[in-house]
Amino acid sequence: MRDVFISGVGMTEFGKFPGSSVRKLAVRATDTALADAGAAVEDIEMVFFANAVQGLLTGQEMVRGQVALRETGLLGIPMVNVENACASASTAAHLAWMAVASGQVDVALAVGAEKLTHPDKKRSFEAIGTAVDLEGLDELKAEIYRDDPNAEAGTDRSFFMDVYADMGKRYTARTGATAEDFAAVAVKSHQHGALNPRAQYRSLVTVEEVLGSRMVSDPLTLLMCSPIGDGAAAVVLCSEEFAARSQAPRVRVRASSLVSGRVGAWPDSAAERAAAKAYEMAGLGPRDLDVVEVHDAAAPAELIIMEELGLCALGDAPKLLAARDTTLGGRIPVNTSGGLISKGHPVGATGCAQLVELTEQLRGQAGDRQVQGARVGLAENGGGYLGPDPAAVCVTILSRD
Amino acid sequence: MRDVFISGVGMTEFGKFPGSSVRKLAVRATDTALADAGAAVEDIEMVFFANAVQGLLTGQEMVRGQVALRETGLLGIPMVNVENACASASTAAHLAWMAVASGQVDVALAVGAEKLTHPDKKRSFEAIGTAVDLEGLDELKAEIYRDDPNAEAGTDRSFFMDVYADMGKRYTARTGATAEDFAAVAVKSHQHGALNPRAQYRSLVTVEEVLGSRMVSDPLTLLMCSPIGDGAAAVVLCSEEFAARSQAPRVRVRASSLVSGRVGAWPDSAAERAAAKAYEMAGLGPRDLDVVEVHDAAAPAELIIMEELGLCALGDAPKLLAARDTTLGGRIPVNTSGGLISKGHPVGATGCAQLVELTEQLRGQAGDRQVQGARVGLAENGGGYLGPDPAAVCVTILSRD
Repeated sequence: MRDVFISGVGMTEFGKFPGSSVRKLAVRATDTALADAGAAVEDIEMVFFANAVQGLLTGQEMVRGQVALRETGLLGIPMVNVENACASASTAAHLAWMAVASGQVDVALAVGAEKLTHPDKKRSFEAIGTAVDLEGLDELKAEIYRDDPNAEAGTDRSFFMDVYADMGKRYTARTGATAEDFAAVAVKSHQHGALNPRAQYRSLVTVEEVLGSRMVSDPLTLLMCSPIGDGAAAVVLCSEEFAARSQAPRVRVRASSLVSGRVGAWPDSAAERAAAKAYEMAGLGPRDLDVVEVHDAAAPAELIIMEELGLCALGDAPKLLAARDTTLGGRIPVNTSGGLISKGHPVGATGCAQLVELTEQLRGQAGDRQVQGARVGLAENGGGYLGPDPAAVCVTILSRD
Repeated sequence: MRDVFISGVGMTEFGKFPGSSVRKLAVRATDTALADAGAAVEDIEMVFFANAVQGLLTGQEMVRGQVALRETGLLGIPMVNVENACASASTAAHLAWMAVASGQVDVALAVGAEKLTHPDKKRSFEAIGTAVDLEGLDELKAEIYRDDPNAEAGTDRSFFMDVYADMGKRYTARTGATAEDFAAVAVKSHQHGALNPRAQYRSLVTVEEVLGSRMVSDPLTLLMCSPIGDGAAAVVLCSEEFAARSQAPRVRVRASSLVSGRVGAWPDSAAERAAAKAYEMAGLGPRDLDVVEVHDAAAPAELIIMEELGLCALGDAPKLLAARDTTLGGRIPVNTSGGLISKGHPVGATGCAQLVELTEQLRGQAGDRQVQGARVGLAENGGGYLGPDPAAVCVTILSRD
């Protein structure tokens, strides 16, 4: 296994783009990443394409990457269509890393693209809701709605917000965290997102505004939830030799770790297992991190994952947040991009978008949201739900060389 | 890149199984492959799961592998859901090969599973039909139906049978092949399939019966087309050290080559490019092959692919067939399993099923359809359609060690 570098990144703005399509979004992100890498289409030797809901929303299945990229000149090389729910794009990047690390190719491209908005919003919610075991859905619902069977998701939210609400309640029971703590996550996310030109939401919000926004699924209010949106992100992974062609400072993949989730209660969560593998592979620990992106599909998840990653002791995440340790300028900024809550969460694009943010941070190209002197970053991307684990978690550690 | 071996294979019967599901089929194939490899679930370090139509037929998307394999004890390790239309399973096997060849894992599992039958047959046909660029479908149809716009597929067949009919017509124009030649392919396929206990169709048919069966899409009659069916197949790929645990003779992966198709006419087809790469990787050529499985989704494809693989000169495939060179006992038996036409074609399972057949042939375990002394085998699996290339082609070369 040889060293792998990220030599180019690109992403579209995230948001609601009625006139766009998976193809248009994927092509824009790809073009940007290739230009950033100083790469021609001929340099790319393998493509991993991630998408989660296009089949359900447009009927396009089976060969989504070939269809989305047909105008790019990339056709002809190996293309693999990859799915792992909200962790689809990090899974694509993981495979691209493996293809380069193995020596099979010198340059591989991971692209995640999603058009999640639909004129009928219910369709978007339903599509997201397929990232569970549908045959076991009654059982899963009985668990999620154990306290209030009438709470079952209507058509105003995805089932996943009820899953995240349940995580939030369990976290509160375990740690004493409050709705104000969850609101504080959203406040910080928007503060960061306001500095990110590609974020879906760029307005500042207060704790009162977050708590006062529409209740989606108790304890989650609207501003604590990641929004429905569209977007794409792409990452060029390559050998050391090829990386020398890029003008930007070199970013090295120190670890890429994918796990699947397990069903039922275990001593360690999927995120903990993925992180442990990644730390071991990188020879680094939580204290070495300068900047972190986590999968905050809803606010409680940011706190829970911070603890799973070992950024602090169990139950201490709200304290770090309150002390502004995870805010830009703090000790260990989390979700400088604005995270899923504010930057947005076009599901099949999110994993690559996290790597775009980290790469720009490590290169010193993050503009107003730059973490000064950032040398090591970690991304955690989770997808699907098996109860209580996600179905897939990928943890990636990058460093400025 | 280190040597990779196949140490275990398993597959279900192929057929119409109304009481079955992707999960049941996948679990049976997986259990069989693990037992064959002498492997415990704890030995498997990574899973690539292939499926093509479950999202459209049951709504289950995004995390199909985790859902199908949740009862197997495999959850926890990295799982990747892979799609490449009818080449999904060979793509999964290609990635499993890459994972072992890279040294990242010692043992990887590729599983392809499909429940393609549906009480409403139209739904099955429609699902298969999504393996094209749906945005460009009008253009593609204008090309396929250029001679007779009224020929457009009704609800009695998949659009792909019209695509294969068009390939057949072009092949006839190029080579003078006749409907009798296509019928002879189906006769041979059924002759082989009759010897395969897992084949969907095990009856012998005559040229007259094939020609007299219902016209599906001129020149294709029903018996020249691969049927709708269900099934699963699984392959354990591993390092040399792990392969020593298997009782069976060692089967080595000499080459695994994946390409995507291109749009428009090119001097070489996707299958030719994939084969050229595979031959180079293996240091072997068409003359070294003892047994071949090709993607005969309809009869003309077998003849076309034989020529693309270099088994004979352009236009000579019908002569080889007529001389019984490609029949069991002949010089280079093709589709000893019965091929897609007779063994069946549960789309997301087919690529792994081809590797099951080759592995059994190379181990000398193919029973009544054994190719005596077979030492080198090749599988060609194609998926989707971009016009005139498939969207993906994978060529694998295996040898008895």
